[in-house]
Amino acid sequence: MMKTCIVGASGYTGAELAALLAKHPGFELAALFVSQGSQDAGKLLSDLYGRFTGLLDMPLQPLSQDRLTQLATEYDLIFLATPHEASHEWAATLTAGKAVVMDLSGAFRLKDKDIFARFYGFAHEQPALLQDAVYGLADWHGEKIRQAKLVAVPGCYPTASLTALKPLQVCGLLDEQQWPVINAVSGVSGAGRKAALNSSFCEVSLQAYGVLGHRHQPEISAELGRQVIFTPHLGNFKRGILATVTVKVKAGVTASQVSDAYASAYQSNPMVRLRSSWPKIDEVAGTCYCDLHWKLDENSGHLVVTSAIDNLLKGAAAQALQCANIRFGFAPESGLAEKAL
Amino acid sequence: MMKTCIVGASGYTGAELAALLAKHPGFELAALFVSQGSQDAGKLLSDLYGRFTGLLDMPLQPLSQDRLTQLATEYDLIFLATPHEASHEWAATLTAGKAVVMDLSGAFRLKDKDIFARFYGFAHEQPALLQDAVYGLADWHGEKIRQAKLVAVPGCYPTASLTALKPLQVCGLLDEQQWPVINAVSGVSGAGRKAALNSSFCEVSLQAYGVLGHRHQPEISAELGRQVIFTPHLGNFKRGILATVTVKVKAGVTASQVSDAYASAYQSNPMVRLRSSWPKIDEVAGTCYCDLHWKLDENSGHLVVTSAIDNLLKGAAAQALQCANIRFGFAPESGLAEKAL
Amino acid sequence: MMKTCIVGASGYTGAELAALLAKHPGFELAALFVSQGSQDAGKLLSDLYGRFTGLLDMPLQPLSQDRLTQLATEYDLIFLATPHEASHEWAATLTAGKAVVMDLSGAFRLKDKDIFARFYGFAHEQPALLQDAVYGLADWHGEKIRQAKLVAVPGCYPTASLTALKPLQVCGLLDEQQWPVINAVSGVSGAGRKAALNSSFCEVSLQAYGVLGHRHQPEISAELGRQVIFTPHLGNFKRGILATVTVKVKAGVTASQVSDAYASAYQSNPMVRLRSSWPKIDEVAGTCYCDLHWKLDENSGHLVVTSAIDNLLKGAAAQALQCANIRFGFAPESGLAEKAL
Amino acid sequence: MMKTCIVGASGYTGAELAALLAKHPGFELAALFVSQGSQDAGKLLSDLYGRFTGLLDMPLQPLSQDRLTQLATEYDLIFLATPHEASHEWAATLTAGKAVVMDLSGAFRLKDKDIFARFYGFAHEQPALLQDAVYGLADWHGEKIRQAKLVAVPGCYPTASLTALKPLQVCGLLDEQQWPVINAVSGVSGAGRKAALNSSFCEVSLQAYGVLGHRHQPEISAELGRQVIFTPHLGNFKRGILATVTVKVKAGVTASQVSDAYASAYQSNPMVRLRSSWPKIDEVAGTCYCDLHWKLDENSGHLVVTSAIDNLLKGAAAQALQCANIRFGFAPESGLAEKAL
Repeated sequence: MMKTCIVGASGYTGAELAALLAKHPGFELAALFVSQGSQDAGKLLSDLYGRFTGLLDMPLQPLSQDRLTQLATEYDLIFLATPHEASHEWAATLTAGKAVVMDLSGAFRLKDKDIFARFYGFAHEQPALLQDAVYGLADWHGEKIRQAKLVAVPGCYPTASLTALKPLQVCGLLDEQQWPVINAVSGVSGAGRKAALNSSFCEVSLQAYGVLGHRHQPEISAELGRQVIFTPHLGNFKRGILATVTVKVKAGVTASQVSDAYASAYQSNPMVRLRSSWPKIDEVAGTCYCDLHWKLDENSGHLVVTSAIDNLLKGAAAQALQCANIRFGFAPESGLAEKAL
Repeated sequence: MMKTCIVGASGYTGAELAALLAKHPGFELAALFVSQGSQDAGKLLSDLYGRFTGLLDMPLQPLSQDRLTQLATEYDLIFLATPHEASHEWAATLTAGKAVVMDLSGAFRLKDKDIFARFYGFAHEQPALLQDAVYGLADWHGEKIRQAKLVAVPGCYPTASLTALKPLQVCGLLDEQQWPVINAVSGVSGAGRKAALNSSFCEVSLQAYGVLGHRHQPEISAELGRQVIFTPHLGNFKRGILATVTVKVKAGVTASQVSDAYASAYQSNPMVRLRSSWPKIDEVAGTCYCDLHWKLDENSGHLVVTSAIDNLLKGAAAQALQCANIRFGFAPESGLAEKAL
Repeated sequence: MMKTCIVGASGYTGAELAALLAKHPGFELAALFVSQGSQDAGKLLSDLYGRFTGLLDMPLQPLSQDRLTQLATEYDLIFLATPHEASHEWAATLTAGKAVVMDLSGAFRLKDKDIFARFYGFAHEQPALLQDAVYGLADWHGEKIRQAKLVAVPGCYPTASLTALKPLQVCGLLDEQQWPVINAVSGVSGAGRKAALNSSFCEVSLQAYGVLGHRHQPEISAELGRQVIFTPHLGNFKRGILATVTVKVKAGVTASQVSDAYASAYQSNPMVRLRSSWPKIDEVAGTCYCDLHWKLDENSGHLVVTSAIDNLLKGAAAQALQCANIRFGFAPESGLAEKAL
Repeated sequence: MMKTCIVGASGYTGAELAALLAKHPGFELAALFVSQGSQDAGKLLSDLYGRFTGLLDMPLQPLSQDRLTQLATEYDLIFLATPHEASHEWAATLTAGKAVVMDLSGAFRLKDKDIFARFYGFAHEQPALLQDAVYGLADWHGEKIRQAKLVAVPGCYPTASLTALKPLQVCGLLDEQQWPVINAVSGVSGAGRKAALNSSFCEVSLQAYGVLGHRHQPEISAELGRQVIFTPHLGNFKRGILATVTVKVKAGVTASQVSDAYASAYQSNPMVRLRSSWPKIDEVAGTCYCDLHWKLDENSGHLVVTSAIDNLLKGAAAQALQCANIRFGFAPESGLAEKAL
């Protein structure tokens, strides 16, 4: 059993990670940490998440600076479900020992430091770590993940978007000129577990935000290798993301070619499902899958593909665990596939 | 036109009041105030409530101490949609001139000072005002409201509960021994417009709270003249209250007697509707009505009545305006009935 | 007072029309009709819509063939809130007298008979009427509407989409090559008042449908004068549409030009609001407005505009009434603007 | 491995059962059946429930009369997730061989044939089976269930209500005179998977129904051994039941006594959780637990207890499986407890 802990375990993503790890055959969830000043320090995880009563009555331990330095030698695997700033600050310490680190924040996702500074509001000061960090799009970068010391687990929107777009890009089917248009709607849990007026029950209602400037746009573009237009929306549901991607394909591209592109990418992939109908949010919420369905108008060369994930699972915790599975030699779907049952 | 203003206009109740007054034929909405330190001071009401764009582009003016003292002579009618503490502190000043004050807070609802202190957490220091304040249950206390200087507009739960219970009590149909059981579910807007974890979108889910100790229990009991058991719940909807009231009637009471009790109370009342089916929240949300339906088991003497209101309207703003209509000689339903269309 | 009736009054759109007409200063709502075999025939409108109890206790009269032939001479104005097939069949009879007809179905929206047959599944057999019918996009076709005998009130999605796109097209700002991409999410009421598994509460969840083949696509294209990609989605809310439109503008087009295009189209329009923030569904639900907000990336020439309406109001009943206002010489916003209060 | 099948597998309860059985270590889910005329016959379960794609791609086999007679000898365990009428008709055949039958319908819950006929609308014609059927309240009747041939799995409301009330009754704490008052709110899935206007998305809104006459009232009373008042409500959520139970205790009963009553009933029970705060629906939705919390006013002798379950799980499928666990010698919580993770 690999010894693991979660830093930042009080948030929605941390809690999902804890639940996944508690059932995993190969990882032992040994400790949960929160930042030292957190008002949740000392509580049980099940105090915050009543559904875990009797199952995850583990304390949320405050993480002192001293304790922090010990983690790297104490654990085989550390999940960082922390704010960008904390991950940026702590990653060097946490990777100084035997531990492998899965960082669920945005601190190590963007290789370009200028773009990072523009979209995250502070300068990156860990150039070597940033250089070595592996982008943890688990269904695509298994080989690199297998060697990684620090994995930058992708954002929720990029996971949904890239799962839809990469097969088309890799197979050279996309028109050179037109930028893919990604419209995505996320459940409110994407905003995290916190008191905020704009995520209060009475204020939430379907709305675009971060238009032509969201930090997940450069993440998608960098990984895809081409520009995209990405428009996120807040939806009135708790969890899930539906991304609707509209692209122009090259002249003459057929449905059969598109079908082959997706099949070659995902046919034998246990965590991406090529669906025969348009996926609903509720069909993936609470699961670790990414569901895809598409339609091509061969006459005009327009292709629409929708991609659905649970933002907290495939868009965060489950993808982090999928990376960990790969890194430690378990089957990628270990502890993940049966979540849908 | 009576000159009116709203103090505490940035909250959900204040906004509803503004909308009602803007269409009212007899009241002129001349100003909106917020507390001096409010972060909303200087904004337009439509900045906070996008739906009012172009209709209520009125500024939220910070209310200084100086300005406060002028209101009593400047306005005919002042609505206080403020916290209990503010209403308690300001009511004396605001009633010192010609103005009539409609207080939507709990500051003047409980005549018993000991009970007040126990349920509101501070001692009442306005005994004379408290004595003179009229409890603004508009469908029942028209005569007193017509003379009032200060009206304590009832809470949302008491409005729903009392509208259901008073006809039975007044007609002497209730069993002497058994306490009426009130179970009520409120929409989240009852918690006000604010950032709070327990009213954040992802945390809200049907749940009891304030069991055997909510401050609306003594308010109901005092007005009804007998003890009740009141159990409030938070529901996963934005607005509305459904109160389900279960009572034991005296031996031999018939359905016909119950029917007469409700008919005599509300048959000619424009704002209470005796429905022929069980009311839904959505049938009253956005309206100024209280809808009632009941069923009696003559064998066992148990009666169940459900009462539905919009917590922000009949449970707050619309009832305040109904009181104002009565106080200033308009028809009680003026500016209210057509809201449902 | 113009004498009006609604045919097909039992559906969600018919009910909204009834509510709007009941408050309108210039139209008298004299009768509500349903098809002869309807199970709602003989009921009151308020039996179906409890919120209208006491306000719209009007009977739903079964419409016999005999009665149908009288309507054209009996009424000044007839609203058809009927299925496409019924409107197609009845329009000739209803326009044979003095009555002006507002048809809310799709029967007369598409001038091209081949496209009509392909998307509606039957051949159009009223060529003359189809030729003369005026497309009732009320904010754009006032002059023609003023003369119309039969108005084809636009679909809900086209209203949201065209309100966003027409100013750009009219001012010649759109790139010639790239097709505008319209992603729209509709509330479930768009599916009508009926028992159906896919609109049952437990089955509804955000999902695309009708991809690259919805009948509103040719309607938008025909009116806009260029091809578009239109992807509708079902959302988990009762009413409202949010359309997110992504376009490429011509090289060199500036934000100032876009601003001018929208201002010249809507600055003095009472029913379209140019918002300063991204509109939410809840800000237009229950109102008769279309709310717009946009952002241009001048570097890449991509523009995103979102458009929000209530699908049952601006997307149906309110637009029909706006057309009627124009047709009978009332202000376009008469009986509509104050709905938001 | 015990060989099992589900009859009536296309409904919400059947689908939940399939998911639970697919992960269970001791039961093999060998077949899914639907009635012969079902429009779902021949489809895969995952065609109806997209979330099960790749996990439960099992066909829904039409159940002919011939096939029906074979089941009793072919299977060790049969789950009947069928309408009352079908269970009533088929139970004799299905119990004629080695198979144990878990019936999730109401066909065998009420021992009194007169009451059955009144509440179910037809005469019971299986008196012997009815006599022998064991009421499957799994946390209470383990001994009888261990011997049962036919288990009548309780209704969802009775499960929530009885779990709250039985400890008080068993310990003799309830006042003799006053009837317990049960107010319960159920998610819409309780109405089953079907097209119906009153469970369509736009029509659902919190509302009482079946007042003083719901068929679950006599079921609760019979099992509890005393009369109760039971008022069900439909809530605007997909799954879960919250029952709020208000009782009068005998004079002098203390909180300590109540605490002991609940502890002795459930302290070592793996599927009932005595919570330290008021349970929310979302804390039990998707889990197999019943969560309880209570408060006593020692002065007045009133006790309020709330009980929360997932109506499809603890209120149906999970309780059926808990009974099966007991019947076949597995731990009661086998395959159930970890569902919450």
